[in-house]
Amino acid sequence: MSPATDEVERSYMLRALRLAERGRGRTSPNPIVGAVLVRRGRVVGEGWHRRLGAPHAEHEALARAGSRARGATLYVTLEPCAHEGRTPPCVDALIRAGVRRCVVALRDPHRIVNGRGLRALRRAGIEVRTGLCAERARQMIRGYWLAHTRARPQVTWKVAATLDGRIADRRGASRWITGSEAREEGHRLRALADAVMVGSRTALRDDPRLTARGMGAVRQPLRVVCDTGLRLPLTLRMFEGGLARGTVVACGRGAPRRRREALEERGVRVWPLPVGRGGVSPPALAARLAREGCHEVLLEGGAMLGTAWLSAGLVDRIALFVAPKLLGADGLAWCGPLGASLSRARTGRLVTQAGRGRDAYLLVDFGG
Amino acid sequence: MSPATDEVERSYMLRALRLAERGRGRTSPNPIVGAVLVRRGRVVGEGWHRRLGAPHAEHEALARAGSRARGATLYVTLEPCAHEGRTPPCVDALIRAGVRRCVVALRDPHRIVNGRGLRALRRAGIEVRTGLCAERARQMIRGYWLAHTRARPQVTWKVAATLDGRIADRRGASRWITGSEAREEGHRLRALADAVMVGSRTALRDDPRLTARGMGAVRQPLRVVCDTGLRLPLTLRMFEGGLARGTVVACGRGAPRRRREALEERGVRVWPLPVGRGGVSPPALAARLAREGCHEVLLEGGAMLGTAWLSAGLVDRIALFVAPKLLGADGLAWCGPLGASLSRARTGRLVTQAGRGRDAYLLVDFGG
Repeated sequence: MSPATDEVERSYMLRALRLAERGRGRTSPNPIVGAVLVRRGRVVGEGWHRRLGAPHAEHEALARAGSRARGATLYVTLEPCAHEGRTPPCVDALIRAGVRRCVVALRDPHRIVNGRGLRALRRAGIEVRTGLCAERARQMIRGYWLAHTRARPQVTWKVAATLDGRIADRRGASRWITGSEAREEGHRLRALADAVMVGSRTALRDDPRLTARGMGAVRQPLRVVCDTGLRLPLTLRMFEGGLARGTVVACGRGAPRRRREALEERGVRVWPLPVGRGGVSPPALAARLAREGCHEVLLEGGAMLGTAWLSAGLVDRIALFVAPKLLGADGLAWCGPLGASLSRARTGRLVTQAGRGRDAYLLVDFGG
Repeated sequence: MSPATDEVERSYMLRALRLAERGRGRTSPNPIVGAVLVRRGRVVGEGWHRRLGAPHAEHEALARAGSRARGATLYVTLEPCAHEGRTPPCVDALIRAGVRRCVVALRDPHRIVNGRGLRALRRAGIEVRTGLCAERARQMIRGYWLAHTRARPQVTWKVAATLDGRIADRRGASRWITGSEAREEGHRLRALADAVMVGSRTALRDDPRLTARGMGAVRQPLRVVCDTGLRLPLTLRMFEGGLARGTVVACGRGAPRRRREALEERGVRVWPLPVGRGGVSPPALAARLAREGCHEVLLEGGAMLGTAWLSAGLVDRIALFVAPKLLGADGLAWCGPLGASLSRARTGRLVTQAGRGRDAYLLVDFGG
C-alpha cells in the first residue's frame, strides 16, 4: 500500500475516533465506538454507539449507507462483535451488506469477542486490516480495556488544592478551595464516571451527595464509600432517600453484621472485602468495581484513600484543580507519604493544562 | 471628548505600552518607558527606552518625528523627566520640538520627578492629560513603582515543584524536578531580575551559581544570599573568581567580623542587617535592595526564606513550575506553615498558565 493511501486510511480512522467520542459517558459498560464506511473514496455512511442499548456504530453506519455499503470499506475503532448481545451481531450485518474490507483499530479485549469478530469477517471473505491508530483507540477506551485485560477500572484521582498543594486548612475547612467553574468541571468529571469514590473521613467531614449536577447529566455514577468498620452514621446524605440505592459501602469482612443490615435495609449495597494496612484493599475493590461494570472511577479523596490507591499502582490519572491561594504547611497535603526518591518518583505526562475560571486545571496521566 | 476619540487615544497608549516592553530587563534602575507621537491622526514618531544610559523614550520618538513633532500629541507611559540625569531632561526637548499636548499614563513616583515634569509641561503651555491606562502602566513597572513608593522591590518567588508541591525528596535531592525547558525559563526570569536571592541552606545544598545563562543575557543579576551568622564556606561557587564581585551576603549585625573580612577580601559585599525570628529581617533587606536599585528580585528558595518573605507580606508573585511527578508528603514542601484559615487564605490571581516542555508553569500575582 502506498504511503498516500495509508495517510488517507488514517484520516478515516481519525474521523471514526472523533465520532466515537460523541458517545462518551453514555455507553457504559459498553465502550464508545465510531465507524466510517467509504466507497470509491467517498464516505457513504458513518455512525457511533450513542448509548447503552442503542445500535452499535457499525449498524449506524450501515443504516446510513444503505445499498452503498456494498463493496465499501469499513473503518471502525474496535473489533465488530460476532455475538448476540443487546443488539444483533455486527459481523453478520457487515457480511449481509456486502462490505468488502474492514480496517479495525483495536481488537476487542472482551472475552466474548477477542478476535472472534475478526475471524468471522475473514471467514466470510472480507479483507481485514488491524492496528491502525491502535494505541489511540486503546487510550480512548482505557477504562474498558483495563477492565477486560486487567480486571480493574481506570481510576482518576480528582483533587482541588491550593497552589501549595493543600486541600484543607489546619482546622479541616475545605469548602471551597476552588471557584465555581472548577467545581462545575468536577461535576462534568462525575458525569463521565461510572463510579465516584471517597474515603470515610471525607464522607464524614463533607457529607457529600456525590451526584453529577448540571449539564443535563444523563445518569448518575455509583457512589462508593470505603468504610472498613461500617462506622459512618446512617444520617449521611448518600444513605438517605433517593441516593441510598445508588450507594455502595466497601467494608472489611469483619464489619458488624447489624450495621450492614441497617444499610441494606435502606437499599445501600454493602461489599465486604479484604482489608490491608490502609483499610479496604484497593486491588480487591478495584476488581469488584470492574466486575460490576464500573470501568471509569473518579476518586475524590481524601488524602489517605488516594495515597493508598496510588501506592497500590491503581491511580491512572490525577485531575488537579489548583486555586491561586496559599494555606501553608499547616494545611492538609492532598498526597500522603510515598517513600519515593526523586530518581524513582512516579512520573506522569501532562495531558491537559487549562484555566477553569480563576483556577488552573492540570490533568496528568500516569497510566500505561 | 467623544468616546471614539478616547478609544483612539487608548489605542496609542497601548502601542506605547507595548513599545516599552521591548526594553524590559535592560533599563534598570530606570523603568521601561514607551512613547508615541501623533499628528493629525498619524503616528509621526515612536520610541522606547532601550537600555540604561540610552536616550529616553520621548527623545527617541522626537528624533524619529523630526519637524513633524510640531503641534503633535505625545502618548507616553510615564511622566517625562524635568531634570538633568544620565540624559538631558525630556520636558525641555518636548517644549523645544513644539509638542502641543501630552497624554501621560502615570506620574513618575521617583522623588526627583513626581509631578515636576507635568508642571513644567503645563507651565510651557502644553496641554496635559494624565491617568490613561494608568493601572496597566503601573503594573508594567511595578518593581520601580514599589521601590519609589514603598521603598521595597517587587519580589517574585520562583519554585520548581512536583504536582504535589514538593521541592526535594526525603533525602534532600532536588536536581532536577523540572525539565530543561522549565529550567531555561528559570534563566529567563533571572535575566529579567536585578537580584536573585537564596537562603543559606539552598546555597549550601545546591551550591548554585545564580547566573542567567543562555539567551544572550545582557547583564547578570546581583546574587544575594541570606546567611545570618556568615557560616557558609568560602568554597561556594558564588564566592569564587568572577562571581564573587556580583555577590552580596546579607547577614545579622552580630555576624563574626573575621568571616566578614574574608568575604570582603574576595570582593563579596556584606550587608549587616537586623535579624528577626526567621533570620535576616525581610523588610530590612527589602529596603536595602530597593536602595541599591534592585527593583525586581527573584527569590529562588528555599522554603524557609520564601515563607519568611511571604509572611512579611513581601512576596508579590509566585512563579511555579509544576513537574508531572509525585514525591509524597515525606518530600519537602515548598511553602512552610502560614497559620492561615481557608477563609483568610492569601489569594492571588492566576496571570499566566502555560506549558514549559513536559512541565506546567503557573504565575500567580499576589501584589497590589
